[in-house]
Amino acid sequence: MEYLVGVDLGGTNTSVGAVDLDGNLIKELSRPSGDDGVYSVADVIISLCKELIFEYGKPCGIGIGVPGAVCDGTIIRTVNLPISYFEIGKMIESKLGVKYKLINDANAAALGEYTVMKMKAENVVLMTIGTGIGGGIIIDGKIYEGANGTAGEIGHTVIRKGGLMCTCGRRGCFERYASANALKRQTARAAKLHPESMLANAEKISGKTAFDCARAGDKAASEVVDKYIEYVGEGVCNLINIFQPEYFLIGGGISNEGEYFISRVRDYVRKREYNQFGKRTEIRAASLCNDAGIIGAALYAME
Amino acid sequence: MEYLVGVDLGGTNTSVGAVDLDGNLIKELSRPSGDDGVYSVADVIISLCKELIFEYGKPCGIGIGVPGAVCDGTIIRTVNLPISYFEIGKMIESKLGVKYKLINDANAAALGEYTVMKMKAENVVLMTIGTGIGGGIIIDGKIYEGANGTAGEIGHTVIRKGGLMCTCGRRGCFERYASANALKRQTARAAKLHPESMLANAEKISGKTAFDCARAGDKAASEVVDKYIEYVGEGVCNLINIFQPEYFLIGGGISNEGEYFISRVRDYVRKREYNQFGKRTEIRAASLCNDAGIIGAALYAME
Repeated sequence: MEYLVGVDLGGTNTSVGAVDLDGNLIKELSRPSGDDGVYSVADVIISLCKELIFEYGKPCGIGIGVPGAVCDGTIIRTVNLPISYFEIGKMIESKLGVKYKLINDANAAALGEYTVMKMKAENVVLMTIGTGIGGGIIIDGKIYEGANGTAGEIGHTVIRKGGLMCTCGRRGCFERYASANALKRQTARAAKLHPESMLANAEKISGKTAFDCARAGDKAASEVVDKYIEYVGEGVCNLINIFQPEYFLIGGGISNEGEYFISRVRDYVRKREYNQFGKRTEIRAASLCNDAGIIGAALYAME
Repeated sequence: MEYLVGVDLGGTNTSVGAVDLDGNLIKELSRPSGDDGVYSVADVIISLCKELIFEYGKPCGIGIGVPGAVCDGTIIRTVNLPISYFEIGKMIESKLGVKYKLINDANAAALGEYTVMKMKAENVVLMTIGTGIGGGIIIDGKIYEGANGTAGEIGHTVIRKGGLMCTCGRRGCFERYASANALKRQTARAAKLHPESMLANAEKISGKTAFDCARAGDKAASEVVDKYIEYVGEGVCNLINIFQPEYFLIGGGISNEGEYFISRVRDYVRKREYNQFGKRTEIRAASLCNDAGIIGAALYAME
């Protein structure tokens, strides 16, 4: 069978998938990302790929989506994994004998979404909310990578000057307030402050906890979600004022909360965006959700 | 003589210029912008154009750069002038009998700069610092206007959530901290707090006051400039993390402060930008400075 492998290297989990040449995900495997230096990160990828190759034979190519800046086969910088300036592609090629391509993970997600959904729009911005916040920008139907391949770091734009210290070295980055990790932190703090709340009784706090408890009517959880929507909305509004794309897509784990989440972000932005009159950006959940990164990375390997 | 007219409609002053077909500014006239409703704004433009027409005859076209969102011949929204949804172009055409085009003023400045400087870069972001902050974005050699013509409102991106109320309705916009108006406000406050300073003895506070006094060694003024550089740098760093363009140009009145100002913004950003390794964005003053808007608007009318 002719197929491609897409890798979604996340700050928390690594997923690999076998993807057919039309962009359909055939099989997906997932495991916690290596956290003991660069080789552990590469080992998890290689081991998962071997499982796919065992089942489907050699793929036509491997596309690796990385949560950070990449250039050719090298990871230039990623702030949520213990990697910088590492030729991960070359290492994987030598171990598996398969050609590779590296792509920023949010770019991969945007490409996956754009291609598979056959979007007619010329300009699309995709924001992925995971461990961090990534951005994939499509302009005139093509991934926009800037002069050096590292454009789209929308998570590392300051929305609260002098605020929380970010892994990138700045204070007050969007990512520190609106990522899934940030939401977990905000939820944990509320759980401590409100021992009477459902949050305090949650077995383990995840990015879903506050949403689940808010839906069940918990007041402290609702307050966490309200504030979180504000943070997300502020960043989305900034990006719409800059790009005014046809579509603004929200992907990553948190987007699984669906319209309960998206509609509230949309309301927040609609009241505040600069363009209040003409044709306005459509804000919606990325339809491929977590698969978009794998599919986009795989399709990128085909190019 | 074949020539074009470019209009730079500012929140404070309106300038019009006669520009030859190669983009050379032949004559420029300036007057305070009308502040008594839309007709007063149009009247100032029309009266200045008549002076040029009296001297040079009928131009081939008029390009009007507007500090806000435009679509076809209509000003959709501008927050620093008393205009919204006004067909200013049609009115000017009917009074002068000359074809017009409307363009966002920062887009005009970017186009002027890009064309006249024969820039080889594909991706350029220009930020104009005036009464407000405007953004002109060039991608693949073309002005990027988004899906509705209103992209590039970089001044209306929140850098301090919950901060100062902005004319756009949000709190904490970049423009509220880093425009020339913001600097004047910051300077006036310091003058009050430090009656011993040179600032307090300035006859009239302008966007130049703090820079002039800081250069002369005044401590209070230096503190104002330091803080102002931080604000500007924070926004520039955000935009570079998003766009990673070949060039980031800073234009508008404050850019007349030259390297004293630009080099300090550059230092601030260099330490903080996400991409610390590969090819990095060159930050420099827009070379045409205040003329870029007039020239770009004029050239746009020729298209």
